[in-house]
Amino acid sequence: MALLVQKFGGTAVGDAERIRAVADHVARTVRRGNQVVMVVSAMGKETDDLLRLAKDVSSTHPGREMDMLITAGERKSTALMCMALHDLGIPADSFTGSQAGFLTDTTHTNAKILAVRPDRIQEAVDDGRVAVVGGSQGVSTDNDVTFLGRGGSDTTAVALAHALGADACELYTDVTGVFTTDPRVVSTARKMPTVSFDELLEMTATGCPKPAMRSVEYARTHGVRLHVRSAFTWQEGTWVTEEEPEMEQAIVSAVTHDMSEAKMTLAGLPDHPGVAARVFRSLSDLGVNVDMIVQNVSAQGVTDISFTVPHEDLAKTQEAASALVAELGASEVLVDTAIARVSVVGAGMRSNPGVAATMFEVLATEEINIAMISTSAIRVSCVVEQVRVEDAVRALHDAFGLSVV
Amino acid sequence: MALLVQKFGGTAVGDAERIRAVADHVARTVRRGNQVVMVVSAMGKETDDLLRLAKDVSSTHPGREMDMLITAGERKSTALMCMALHDLGIPADSFTGSQAGFLTDTTHTNAKILAVRPDRIQEAVDDGRVAVVGGSQGVSTDNDVTFLGRGGSDTTAVALAHALGADACELYTDVTGVFTTDPRVVSTARKMPTVSFDELLEMTATGCPKPAMRSVEYARTHGVRLHVRSAFTWQEGTWVTEEEPEMEQAIVSAVTHDMSEAKMTLAGLPDHPGVAARVFRSLSDLGVNVDMIVQNVSAQGVTDISFTVPHEDLAKTQEAASALVAELGASEVLVDTAIARVSVVGAGMRSNPGVAATMFEVLATEEINIAMISTSAIRVSCVVEQVRVEDAVRALHDAFGLSVV
Repeated sequence: MALLVQKFGGTAVGDAERIRAVADHVARTVRRGNQVVMVVSAMGKETDDLLRLAKDVSSTHPGREMDMLITAGERKSTALMCMALHDLGIPADSFTGSQAGFLTDTTHTNAKILAVRPDRIQEAVDDGRVAVVGGSQGVSTDNDVTFLGRGGSDTTAVALAHALGADACELYTDVTGVFTTDPRVVSTARKMPTVSFDELLEMTATGCPKPAMRSVEYARTHGVRLHVRSAFTWQEGTWVTEEEPEMEQAIVSAVTHDMSEAKMTLAGLPDHPGVAARVFRSLSDLGVNVDMIVQNVSAQGVTDISFTVPHEDLAKTQEAASALVAELGASEVLVDTAIARVSVVGAGMRSNPGVAATMFEVLATEEINIAMISTSAIRVSCVVEQVRVEDAVRALHDAFGLSVV
Repeated sequence: MALLVQKFGGTAVGDAERIRAVADHVARTVRRGNQVVMVVSAMGKETDDLLRLAKDVSSTHPGREMDMLITAGERKSTALMCMALHDLGIPADSFTGSQAGFLTDTTHTNAKILAVRPDRIQEAVDDGRVAVVGGSQGVSTDNDVTFLGRGGSDTTAVALAHALGADACELYTDVTGVFTTDPRVVSTARKMPTVSFDELLEMTATGCPKPAMRSVEYARTHGVRLHVRSAFTWQEGTWVTEEEPEMEQAIVSAVTHDMSEAKMTLAGLPDHPGVAARVFRSLSDLGVNVDMIVQNVSAQGVTDISFTVPHEDLAKTQEAASALVAELGASEVLVDTAIARVSVVGAGMRSNPGVAATMFEVLATEEINIAMISTSAIRVSCVVEQVRVEDAVRALHDAFGLSVV
């Protein structure tokens, strides 16, 4: 008998029919002799709907009230899930984050977990009941309702699995696991039986189910066994593991791409110490999530700084950049929104230099121009023209031998 | 400086615009130098929507889960109300029933309040903040979320006013107070400056704002000053008071009518002891809320029993009645859905016999036939043809001198 924590996101519980389908899956898991603790998100786009409502009502959004509002979503989905389970003869109880023992700090809308004391959950499990816990919520040291932020349900699941000493934490998605690349782009993409924590953290979101980074880090720190899988099949999904250095390892595990960012260049900046710091401090103060950064070699005392930013931050970034151009005496701001990023990821790169070179060669053969490059120990990313990015993915997936044979 | 508990129902907070309008009203109340604790219901038809969702998801509806589900509604409305208040520069905090100190028994979906310990509410008020409390909810002795039932927000408001020692409990409705009759039927209807607890409890819902009976009883028991009023005017509404016997009193205070019930007759029942008990026990077991009951004089060992039931209970009542006809050897079940009830209510009736006779005479003059009669110490009700009920209301309102002069 295994104790499993199973987490289902908003899409999986998006309407009455889906809730019943998930309940059926959980009921079968229980009938196979397992103990189950569920973590569920709010239904479908409910969180977005609540945010829209808040915007309609007021221009002031105190965090304490936003958290009270948003956690209403999980209250609904957990209660409905329990009803669906009862209908199938499976006794089940819903629990808010507070009832499940999630004590957090007082950082509303993005609270951090301080402790998990799942006494009531353990009790329900011991009584042979399924405990259904609202994801991404807790109670603060001030006794106020807190929200852990978007994607916080993954963290709830992992933290609960750790606190309960569960055998595994299963994160359910609408695909059957983590793939070597986006199967919509490359039909020969393979499901990976395992992926390392490092690799998963380096993989960008597009086309692969990616647990919230925070939850992956939590799982790694606490040794929680993570299993990314689908509720529509009983096949194994992808296990997230520590690397096992003894195993023979593919050099590249996956090719990913991301079209959510734009490229911005501040041209003709004076090449003084502190200029880059001034630029990125000012963007950071705006809450802009700058990703890749490239600074060109200085020529004649001036330099260009290019970086990528999410499309949704573009407007405020442009405003800040214009101010900086004036302040720092740069020549202009250039924006390119028609870019995409393609990356190759693999823990095996650590012991296999030359992956970057191979990647550049493959792209050159395809006549795909590289606009920016950035690397980590287990990843190489190139910014390319958006219209060519899928060609790049297919060529790299083939070149690194990832396709189904 | 007065401490006021102000309760707003679902219609008053039905959409973003209305929430802002209510917040504006509360802000003005605060700026006039009052301390305010608000109690709000779920937005508009939200509770109905949640019930529909539960029906879609499952045929099993454990009370614990229904309460978890339904209380999501007030969580939204309280948080949104606080945001709207912040927007107007009024500091405000939302509180669930549990946070507001409502301890209840474990009767889910219809819990009873055991104690109110509003420490956090008092603290917010002392800090110069508006406390916004979710209506109709609490936490049980088992630490589970409980719902006090439909209309429970009035009870929350009254109980909170008592626990806080508030100067008044204001129940906001969409009309300006309690009227001598339905102003839609009789244009000369008058707003009553005061109404006694007894009278209010006897008045039926149609056409007059009627606080939930439970809250009126609670207010009476604990001496809470109740004020039924509208947020759209600063005029006084109707105060609910104990009768003051010294005051000269109108004999009849109000004429009310109700079209929500049907009349059912079990004809040709054997006239034995225990037959009526059998009939009404069986209906009570079904949860049917039987209202007026009339048993005809027995002739030749058989008798007829007539009673009224809400339209929504008609189907199950008919089923039970048919079974009873077979079991008890009655002759038939007669149903009349085209009936209505008209009532005259007045604490002054106690010392003024003859009101019933006057009522019957007025109806006779109008050639309105009376199908059933029932009376209490301060009320006389007649069942009449539904098509004539508004004529009856107008004639009685005139005859008892209630119209605006």
